[in-house]
Amino acid sequence: MEMLKQRILQDGRALSDQVLLVDSFLNHQVDVALMKACGEEFARRFADAGITRIATIESSGIAPAAMTALVMDLPMVIMKKSVSSILKDGIIQREVFSFTKNAPYLLTLKTHFITPGDRVLLIDDFLANGEAAFGGIALLEQAGATVAGVGAVIAKAFQPGMEKLRAAGYRVEALAPVKHMAEGVIEF
Amino acid sequence: MEMLKQRILQDGRALSDQVLLVDSFLNHQVDVALMKACGEEFARRFADAGITRIATIESSGIAPAAMTALVMDLPMVIMKKSVSSILKDGIIQREVFSFTKNAPYLLTLKTHFITPGDRVLLIDDFLANGEAAFGGIALLEQAGATVAGVGAVIAKAFQPGMEKLRAAGYRVEALAPVKHMAEGVIEF
Repeated sequence: MEMLKQRILQDGRALSDQVLLVDSFLNHQVDVALMKACGEEFARRFADAGITRIATIESSGIAPAAMTALVMDLPMVIMKKSVSSILKDGIIQREVFSFTKNAPYLLTLKTHFITPGDRVLLIDDFLANGEAAFGGIALLEQAGATVAGVGAVIAKAFQPGMEKLRAAGYRVEALAPVKHMAEGVIEF
Repeated sequence: MEMLKQRILQDGRALSDQVLLVDSFLNHQVDVALMKACGEEFARRFADAGITRIATIESSGIAPAAMTALVMDLPMVIMKKSVSSILKDGIIQREVFSFTKNAPYLLTLKTHFITPGDRVLLIDDFLANGEAAFGGIALLEQAGATVAGVGAVIAKAFQPGMEKLRAAGYRVEALAPVKHMAEGVIEF
C-alpha cells in the first residue's frame, strides 16, 4: 500500500535493525484517516474471504481494526491483555510472550462473542515474531471460529511471524512489509 | 443520545448498583457503526469548541475516540497505561488509580504529540469517579494543551466524576448519563 509506505518512510524511524518507531501516526498519535484507508485496503484484499467478524488484540490494533470493521460493516472483537474484575465468566485465555515488553501476558477472549462458524479476519498493527497472532488464532479457533485471514498494517518480514503463519496455512496480508531495517534505513 | 440509551437497555446488564456490563457492544465486542454514531454526536455537541485534537486513554476509549477523530477530521492521541521499551523519550506520567482493576497505573503521554495551544477533546468509554479523566487532563495541560471538553459514551452520573469535572470548570458531555442502577435496573 503505497500511501502507507510513503508515510512510514517520511515519519517512521528505524531505531535499529529490529525497532521501527511509528508512534507519530500508528500507535500513540494515530492518523485515523490513514487507518481508514488501511481498512479499505484490507476490505479489498479480503473481499473474497467471506469474513463475518473482525478481531484484534488490544491496544494498538484497535484503531486499524475498528476502521476495517467500519468499512466492512462487521462487528469487532478486542482480545484483551488483562482481565477486568467484571469480566470473568465464559472466558478463555492463552499466555503470549511480548518481545516489546519482554514479558508474558494472558490474552483473553469471551467465547460468547464468537459464533461457531465465524470467519474471522485478525487485524493488528504489527506482525513480527507472530506470537500475538498465533495466540489470538488459538483463542479464536478454540471458540469455534475459522481464521480466514490475518492482516497486519506493518510486517517486519525479516522476522519469522509472516512465514510461520503462511507455513501453518493462514492467509496473511501485510500492507507495508518491511524487508530490511538498520538504524535510519527502512526498505520494503 | 436515544439510540445509545436503547442499546444499553437492550444489551447492557447492571450487575449491581455500581457495575454496568456493556461488553457486547462497547468494550470487548464493539459495534463500530454505533461508535461512529457516537462520534457524530460528540462532533455535534462540541462543534463550537474549537477542538484541534482528540485524546483518549487506552484501551476501551480508542474505538469511540477514533470514530470521533474520523468524523471531526482530527488527529487522535492515545494516552498509554504501560510504557513500551521503545517509547521512553519525552514522556510525562501520572499515577492513576483504577477502581475497576483495584490498582494504580502510570498514565503516559509523549509531549511531542501535543502542540501548545491545542484544544483537546478527551473521549473515554466510561466516566465514573473521574480518576482517569483527571489524570489525562493533568498530562494534557502539563503538555501545554487546553482541555476544551470531556466526552464520555456512558457516565455513571451517581458517581462523583462528572460533577467534580464540572466543578473544576470542564465542559462534560455524556451521551448516556445513567442516573441510577441496581441489579437488573438501569435508569437514565
